Amino acid sequence: MAKDPLLLTPGPLTTSAPTKQAMLHDWGSRDSAFIELTARLRRRLSALAEAEAEHVSVPLAGSGTFAVEAMLGTMVAREGRALVLVNGAYGRRMAEILTLAGRAYEILEGAEDQPLDTVAAAARMDADSRISDVVMVHCETTSGVLNPLEEIAEAVARRTKRLLVDAMSSFGAIPIDARRIAFDGLAASANKCLEGVPGMGFVLARRARLEACQGNCHSLGLDLHAQWQGFEKNGQWRFTPPTQVIAALDGALDQLEAEGGIGGRFARYWENCHILVSGMRRMGFETFLKDAVQAPIIVTFRMPRHSGFDFTAFYDGLARHGFLIYPGKLTGDASFRIGCIGDIRARDMENLLVAVESVLGELGIGAIAGQSG
Amino acid sequence: MAKDPLLLTPGPLTTSAPTKQAMLHDWGSRDSAFIELTARLRRRLSALAEAEAEHVSVPLAGSGTFAVEAMLGTMVAREGRALVLVNGAYGRRMAEILTLAGRAYEILEGAEDQPLDTVAAAARMDADSRISDVVMVHCETTSGVLNPLEEIAEAVARRTKRLLVDAMSSFGAIPIDARRIAFDGLAASANKCLEGVPGMGFVLARRARLEACQGNCHSLGLDLHAQWQGFEKNGQWRFTPPTQVIAALDGALDQLEAEGGIGGRFARYWENCHILVSGMRRMGFETFLKDAVQAPIIVTFRMPRHSGFDFTAFYDGLARHGFLIYPGKLTGDASFRIGCIGDIRARDMENLLVAVESVLGELGIGAIAGQSG
Repeated sequence: MAKDPLLLTPGPLTTSAPTKQAMLHDWGSRDSAFIELTARLRRRLSALAEAEAEHVSVPLAGSGTFAVEAMLGTMVAREGRALVLVNGAYGRRMAEILTLAGRAYEILEGAEDQPLDTVAAAARMDADSRISDVVMVHCETTSGVLNPLEEIAEAVARRTKRLLVDAMSSFGAIPIDARRIAFDGLAASANKCLEGVPGMGFVLARRARLEACQGNCHSLGLDLHAQWQGFEKNGQWRFTPPTQVIAALDGALDQLEAEGGIGGRFARYWENCHILVSGMRRMGFETFLKDAVQAPIIVTFRMPRHSGFDFTAFYDGLARHGFLIYPGKLTGDASFRIGCIGDIRARDMENLLVAVESVLGELGIGAIAGQSG
Repeated sequence: MAKDPLLLTPGPLTTSAPTKQAMLHDWGSRDSAFIELTARLRRRLSALAEAEAEHVSVPLAGSGTFAVEAMLGTMVAREGRALVLVNGAYGRRMAEILTLAGRAYEILEGAEDQPLDTVAAAARMDADSRISDVVMVHCETTSGVLNPLEEIAEAVARRTKRLLVDAMSSFGAIPIDARRIAFDGLAASANKCLEGVPGMGFVLARRARLEACQGNCHSLGLDLHAQWQGFEKNGQWRFTPPTQVIAALDGALDQLEAEGGIGGRFARYWENCHILVSGMRRMGFETFLKDAVQAPIIVTFRMPRHSGFDFTAFYDGLARHGFLIYPGKLTGDASFRIGCIGDIRARDMENLLVAVESVLGELGIGAIAGQSG
């Protein structure tokens, strides 16, 4: 069987062999062995954000978006009003969820190549006393920009509003310390920087807040309070859990620890990102973001304007070399993306650069410098 | 590493080694290889119900309950009124979903040891012209009773109402032919009789009906129309799919074919069920259901009243012998359940019976005949 291509995407990602091998078992979801696995996993997820004191960890089956919908639908009060800070597609998606859940909200939208603006957010909070919750994405995968979570959290806390964060693509690689960042809810996924397989997300929720959210959710399956109460009652998942996906995440967390935790992973991703960006720039590609606001998660490149450059041919060429990259998602500009996360190391990024050079040659493009934008 | 226990439950189930090994890869969810896998899987699921002509197959990440909620929340019109036929916990759960989705409904409830009553359902439909949709469970895992899907479907069709079916625990083992059974929606899971791993469900939805359901759902993640439109647009999942779970199901369907399809699986489960029931009866256990209404999926046994019988000790004893059974879920009667489904064969059931006898001996119980009920 041919080797799997490396996934240089925002997920699903390349996972390690031990992570996948952790799925070679069957578990009875109501048996003590699995109850222990669930409890251990919940503890480990809380610990990664230093969130043991005031938060509970609530895993949920399905896509990461389900965890975000569960967080918003359960934790924004029915009579509340959310301020949604938007600088990309995932921020806009949260507004869409609030619409469906029947919650009032307003949007503060900034440019996709800029981090969220804390001063503007603070001004909006001051201008509208009805705002109960501030909703934001930590790392906007649309562009790869890192938003100033700590600054915004401070502005929100000072005004005694609540903060709900989509940390899908940052959790596990970019440190988030609940003792310093006052969030009420933070949603993430097994399959991003934690390097598990896709199929479950989770929310770290402030216990005192979640306790007040009974009956608040618009959905049965996505009711985060009921899901949490299920774990509290008997340690079991409320509905059939994705047992193999859960075991894979537990295995992946062993490897995160072995790598030195979030610090070690952060360093590896930064190295991947640095090799990628500097190598692509040498070949004439331009990044969409300035370096100062680039998270080491996924890099958006402007589509080159060179007449010989065709994205589908470029994608297919890299796929033949064993690398899958990702289309762009910007509102206005033509772009593509290359991820730095997953079980990917410096030599993989170096091999990618060799492949990019080779594919450019196959496309008859010597250099694209000065042609992109 | 110790051998995994056999799971004699309603799921998660014991899956085959090839099914689990199908998860030892990573897929790019927007790459052509995975798009082809998704398309093949959707076709295969439709084909299992002979539903290619008028229905579309819409897979969804998460627990089977998510697929049921997606079906009800998307396909029952906002101005509609559902008649929910209930003879167990899963029927009641569908009413709970309708409440949260803000749909009007009424319940027709029957005894848990009896199949749903077609005549009573027909009378209720005739008595209330506001009823737009009839909602039912095919095999009620609460007791293990098989409901008369074909009869009810005929009564519904004759009145030009719509039928929505939770076929979670029957699909893949009990034949359902869409050319003869007029359903608008039918929800099932990867992890029951199809013998995949847990983490995804799917709905077979009548295309003409689903087309009319845009914007109808109460949830973003569980919107079946939007999910379907995603597949139609570019063959891709709308949100990150559980790639390994999907590959496992595709592998499991190879094995279903090799077994002779639904007919072969039905025969094996019936053999499992027959060995189980006759063997347990020989030891004095009593089934909750009469044989005529028992589906070959899961068997409910009355808790023996023998003073030496303690369910936790019985469960733990069987677990030590490598078998995990399941607690009861009946409203009134003390019971426990043993599943007949998954990668379980006659010799496994025979070994289980030896283990039951041995555990009864360990509990100091020679025979429990005449003591149960």
